[in-house]
Amino acid sequence: MRRLRMGMIGGGPGSFIGPIHRIAAELDREIELVAGCFSSQSDRSHVAGESYRIDPARAYASLDAMFAGEKARPDGIDFVSIVSPNHHHLPAARAALAAGIPVISDKPATATLAEARELAECVAASGLAYGLTHTYSGYPLVREARARIASGALGAIRKVVVEYPQGWLAGDAVGKQAEWRTDPARSGPGGCIGDIGTHAFQLAEFVTGLNVTALVADLAAVVPGRKVDDDCSVLLRFENGARGVLLASQIEVGEMNGLRIRVYGEKGGLLWKQEVPNTLTIHSLDGRTEIVHAGGTQLGPDAASRTRTPTGHPEGYLEAFANIYRDFAAALRGEPAPLLPGIDDALRGMTFIDTAINASREKSGWVALTV
Amino acid sequence: MRRLRMGMIGGGPGSFIGPIHRIAAELDREIELVAGCFSSQSDRSHVAGESYRIDPARAYASLDAMFAGEKARPDGIDFVSIVSPNHHHLPAARAALAAGIPVISDKPATATLAEARELAECVAASGLAYGLTHTYSGYPLVREARARIASGALGAIRKVVVEYPQGWLAGDAVGKQAEWRTDPARSGPGGCIGDIGTHAFQLAEFVTGLNVTALVADLAAVVPGRKVDDDCSVLLRFENGARGVLLASQIEVGEMNGLRIRVYGEKGGLLWKQEVPNTLTIHSLDGRTEIVHAGGTQLGPDAASRTRTPTGHPEGYLEAFANIYRDFAAALRGEPAPLLPGIDDALRGMTFIDTAINASREKSGWVALTV
Amino acid sequence: MRRLRMGMIGGGPGSFIGPIHRIAAELDREIELVAGCFSSQSDRSHVAGESYRIDPARAYASLDAMFAGEKARPDGIDFVSIVSPNHHHLPAARAALAAGIPVISDKPATATLAEARELAECVAASGLAYGLTHTYSGYPLVREARARIASGALGAIRKVVVEYPQGWLAGDAVGKQAEWRTDPARSGPGGCIGDIGTHAFQLAEFVTGLNVTALVADLAAVVPGRKVDDDCSVLLRFENGARGVLLASQIEVGEMNGLRIRVYGEKGGLLWKQEVPNTLTIHSLDGRTEIVHAGGTQLGPDAASRTRTPTGHPEGYLEAFANIYRDFAAALRGEPAPLLPGIDDALRGMTFIDTAINASREKSGWVALTV
Amino acid sequence: MRRLRMGMIGGGPGSFIGPIHRIAAELDREIELVAGCFSSQSDRSHVAGESYRIDPARAYASLDAMFAGEKARPDGIDFVSIVSPNHHHLPAARAALAAGIPVISDKPATATLAEARELAECVAASGLAYGLTHTYSGYPLVREARARIASGALGAIRKVVVEYPQGWLAGDAVGKQAEWRTDPARSGPGGCIGDIGTHAFQLAEFVTGLNVTALVADLAAVVPGRKVDDDCSVLLRFENGARGVLLASQIEVGEMNGLRIRVYGEKGGLLWKQEVPNTLTIHSLDGRTEIVHAGGTQLGPDAASRTRTPTGHPEGYLEAFANIYRDFAAALRGEPAPLLPGIDDALRGMTFIDTAINASREKSGWVALTV
Repeated sequence: MRRLRMGMIGGGPGSFIGPIHRIAAELDREIELVAGCFSSQSDRSHVAGESYRIDPARAYASLDAMFAGEKARPDGIDFVSIVSPNHHHLPAARAALAAGIPVISDKPATATLAEARELAECVAASGLAYGLTHTYSGYPLVREARARIASGALGAIRKVVVEYPQGWLAGDAVGKQAEWRTDPARSGPGGCIGDIGTHAFQLAEFVTGLNVTALVADLAAVVPGRKVDDDCSVLLRFENGARGVLLASQIEVGEMNGLRIRVYGEKGGLLWKQEVPNTLTIHSLDGRTEIVHAGGTQLGPDAASRTRTPTGHPEGYLEAFANIYRDFAAALRGEPAPLLPGIDDALRGMTFIDTAINASREKSGWVALTV
Repeated sequence: MRRLRMGMIGGGPGSFIGPIHRIAAELDREIELVAGCFSSQSDRSHVAGESYRIDPARAYASLDAMFAGEKARPDGIDFVSIVSPNHHHLPAARAALAAGIPVISDKPATATLAEARELAECVAASGLAYGLTHTYSGYPLVREARARIASGALGAIRKVVVEYPQGWLAGDAVGKQAEWRTDPARSGPGGCIGDIGTHAFQLAEFVTGLNVTALVADLAAVVPGRKVDDDCSVLLRFENGARGVLLASQIEVGEMNGLRIRVYGEKGGLLWKQEVPNTLTIHSLDGRTEIVHAGGTQLGPDAASRTRTPTGHPEGYLEAFANIYRDFAAALRGEPAPLLPGIDDALRGMTFIDTAINASREKSGWVALTV
Repeated sequence: MRRLRMGMIGGGPGSFIGPIHRIAAELDREIELVAGCFSSQSDRSHVAGESYRIDPARAYASLDAMFAGEKARPDGIDFVSIVSPNHHHLPAARAALAAGIPVISDKPATATLAEARELAECVAASGLAYGLTHTYSGYPLVREARARIASGALGAIRKVVVEYPQGWLAGDAVGKQAEWRTDPARSGPGGCIGDIGTHAFQLAEFVTGLNVTALVADLAAVVPGRKVDDDCSVLLRFENGARGVLLASQIEVGEMNGLRIRVYGEKGGLLWKQEVPNTLTIHSLDGRTEIVHAGGTQLGPDAASRTRTPTGHPEGYLEAFANIYRDFAAALRGEPAPLLPGIDDALRGMTFIDTAINASREKSGWVALTV
Repeated sequence: MRRLRMGMIGGGPGSFIGPIHRIAAELDREIELVAGCFSSQSDRSHVAGESYRIDPARAYASLDAMFAGEKARPDGIDFVSIVSPNHHHLPAARAALAAGIPVISDKPATATLAEARELAECVAASGLAYGLTHTYSGYPLVREARARIASGALGAIRKVVVEYPQGWLAGDAVGKQAEWRTDPARSGPGGCIGDIGTHAFQLAEFVTGLNVTALVADLAAVVPGRKVDDDCSVLLRFENGARGVLLASQIEVGEMNGLRIRVYGEKGGLLWKQEVPNTLTIHSLDGRTEIVHAGGTQLGPDAASRTRTPTGHPEGYLEAFANIYRDFAAALRGEPAPLLPGIDDALRGMTFIDTAINASREKSGWVALTV
């Protein structure tokens, strides 16, 4: 079985997420990075191509050039991975899909809700695969949590608390990553809510299997002069009536990448934390607390099939990311990939951003979240 | 220096908190339990008196009898401790103060806000000491957190997240403790918000030194048939503009007594958890994380003076509770006790309960919290 | 039921452990401190008596005076608690027992093995109760661990690792506590091995119900000029053939009071740590890990009866200490107290110290430990 | 810069460590797996080659065939990675080196000390690079620990405690991994001491920069019928007089891969745990405790250069393993690779195994460890 060939869009010099996508895509040897339009500046694209150690001839400076060049080769790319800032997501995806090339994209799916709707139309019209890298839903124990809830282990869900604290934007935004994420022209109207709030939102829906239907939001630009939100507190209501709380912040000094989720049902509760991702804590109504270990014998197939090492050999962020790419590779091969985040997550996430921003601005109480 | 003599009100057979107050009051040998009106039933009061090993003649069945009996003795009580369910708090405190006896009371201060206002008038009129056992503000490292924030170590405060998860009321309310706490006639209109939400509220204001000025609240009676709230999510605004989140729940299966607080400022952040109370985590903007240990050399006087053992010898809930009683004893002796929760905390806490219940019922957006 | 009356021996000004014993003894109101020979200097004994708030007339400056004075009172002491440095233990205990007064003593039981043997004879001759405050065996979850092992939950025990790291003597010995503990004239020939190694040794035997029968020891005086050991590594063999490791150190910078024990059997393993004493981790051969909580519903009677607060309300060192005193009070009342450490633990502990010191000095291999 | 081309020796169907080496080698795209002698059975080697998705023509069934086939290609292998059971290590390495091909090998280096000495001669004679995959020394925070100790941050080292608890061999040895590791014909005379004890030994020497010079060992075959040791307790002495303890076990039920190390010096102490590898705890003599985070700003170059993600995005075992391959790739390119474990570690590790086995068998006391 040959490796699928990936072309990258974005990921030029100074990119954080480009090299991450490369490692994740290739980790299981189902995919190989072979080409890229890493930058619209030819020299920068070539420098990036060298750093990825690809054939210099396949480091392009325009999407058209890449699509044409790759089409002309017997070993041309099978799909593109979009890793550029948000405002490039729609144009890049639209062009690729129009060229008949499947797409996997970093999140959030687009810069605005309107763009997401257009993207959904493009995907539907193309009939091609579309994946969205909500990395955290790739962690084995997140999938175990989802499977246990789906099996009824917690009973009906009553309460969800999902948090995503970071502190790296507590000071002035310095450096490439900070600059574009705090610039509405590139990130879209959402700052923190788009960058990490959507991860928390997707995780909550992914783990519970329940849709959010309403919210109250308090978004703030805490750092003086900041043009987008950097701190978000949102109360949620789920489709079954369960209550929820979603907190995301980038100004909480000392927090690193503290995504975590707690879910409580009639019969039990569970807890997972991204920074120590290889344990899942499960509580029962009778007072028992069980620790479930990644790689261990207590796991169902969704988690077991996405673990590469035995218990006690920690896997982390890159491996979780690789699991998303494995799902996408399966989808490209025409296999089932029910856990791959896709265009539905894209639309729901962008609707969440849009709804939360509006609700916060108007200081309204509860508002419906309708996709 | 003689021990101060305490009379207990409430704390009869089956009481959880009565014996806790007894241990806490006596731990440092500044106070001695000598009398009590443990129950309005004479036989039950005597049974309780025996369990506390006090003089049988001093186990009374009415407040009047206790006040009269103790007044007649040369070694009569110096103060009363009120540990009965909420609806008894005001009548008991009013009577004691009217009899010229200082009061320390379990929280919340009263069953309703109106009662709290009456209580405040009684306290003011009496000129006597009044203490409120917000136990958690007695932990040494909570006081260290307060001191560090007051000293400016975190810079201006921007964000506060205070949580108080419990799970013990996730099923039907069974047993004396659960029954009265879920009965509005005894607990007042607030369930979870009064029982533990007020602790979280007081802790947030105590640690930051900032008052809450507005809130959005989502209170729910999750368990079918429950007559008071058992799950509370509240967004906060503090007087300096800082944002806050207060979560309290009694239906989160597996959570025990998980009070915890995180505070973030311009220059740093800190974290404290009640269940592992002997460490305080402090983050700096430069990426440093420091662990501060109870009993250690890094502590200021507020914490150091309220620790009895060297580092690594864990103190816990009873010792924190005892610290409140030490403060109260100091107040009775006419010494400064600036950290003792008192009638201001009582009024603020009851206002918080009342405001949150109303805001949630009306599904309003932001409402002011005005004492 | 009246409170038992305690006289303290030692615990004068500057004592760390005297006030600890006072709190522990009185915590459950079964015992009351009423007298003491806190120092052989009259003024110092009186200062101490004031700090404990006892009747000044009952602060004595000699054992004879205390025994005579208390005998003459209708409310004289029921027992003595010996909290002085090690070299005073035997003389004090011998005198008390000769005067017909039961004894509870801090550990190690005596300064030397020869003294311990004499003590054992005194206890036997007196027919009186003798308790030894191996505090850590008072923790509820230590007792739960013992009960589970005794019930066969782990199968036959194969391996025990018990560690007691501290760092407070990593520098020069400064202060009253450090000085006498590093002075062989007061501490006996053992330093670390006697001060904390015996705790670890007792804990291992207590939890497993197995006696140590042989050892290899490596004891060192690491800090230049130190006259007693401050770092101890010992390999153990138990009576059933199980292997063990006992580590104790007072020069491990940053370690506070890190006593912990792990026990592994054919069918399971368990872990307990003194610094977070309210959880016990239990592993099964099938890969399950369970967390058992103090105060929770999973506990057997030995643990449940020695817990004062519900889950999540941490109890600590003082409460564990109080459990030893509750056992001793039961013994004084003629009730069964099977878990109270006594003269057997005294002899075994002193034999352990003696055997380890000799084995280490001679750099021998395995030597038998025979009481 | 082209990728280096790797040929694998071993790693056939059912191998655990073969796929791990493949991922680790390729993670940073400096190396590519292109060939392999995965099994001496042709069909099995081809099945493995397919699973690795390499060119079927490059899945060989003998070393001679691989060396000849690859030499004949313009894009032949640059080095071999030996991942077979221990008894194959020497023959494979000897053959590769004789064929002029550099070697990286799984540990322990050989099955016996005599073999290790022969290997050292082969390496010296060849003048080629030799790497030994002591994975754990590849963790960024292990390198940070080493760097801080080397810089004198802890002062002179006094004490080292290194532990490697596992539980997977507590029952009967079932499955390919367990079978060969407990068969002296394939593993060599050491079981646990060779499989994981050597990791602990190498880690202790790597982190402290100090050689072990003497030891006392207690090795046991705890599981009935086991032919090699499965539980090891070793006391150590380092070249500067520091004391040490090395514990390794494979029968500690519930332990997963719990390698951890604590080092204490005159001025500080540190702690690192493999299962939560992204924090390093550092204690100072003045009572301060600092948590150092992988990816954070407090790291020196050795750690910072071997981290791929920002703080809070956990890296784990595979990334640590990849760091060893990066060092090896650097060595192949003629660059400095001072932290790459090599033939010295091989000799020291095999000497440790041999010395410990003999010392334990003879129940001797202290014996010298001399390479």
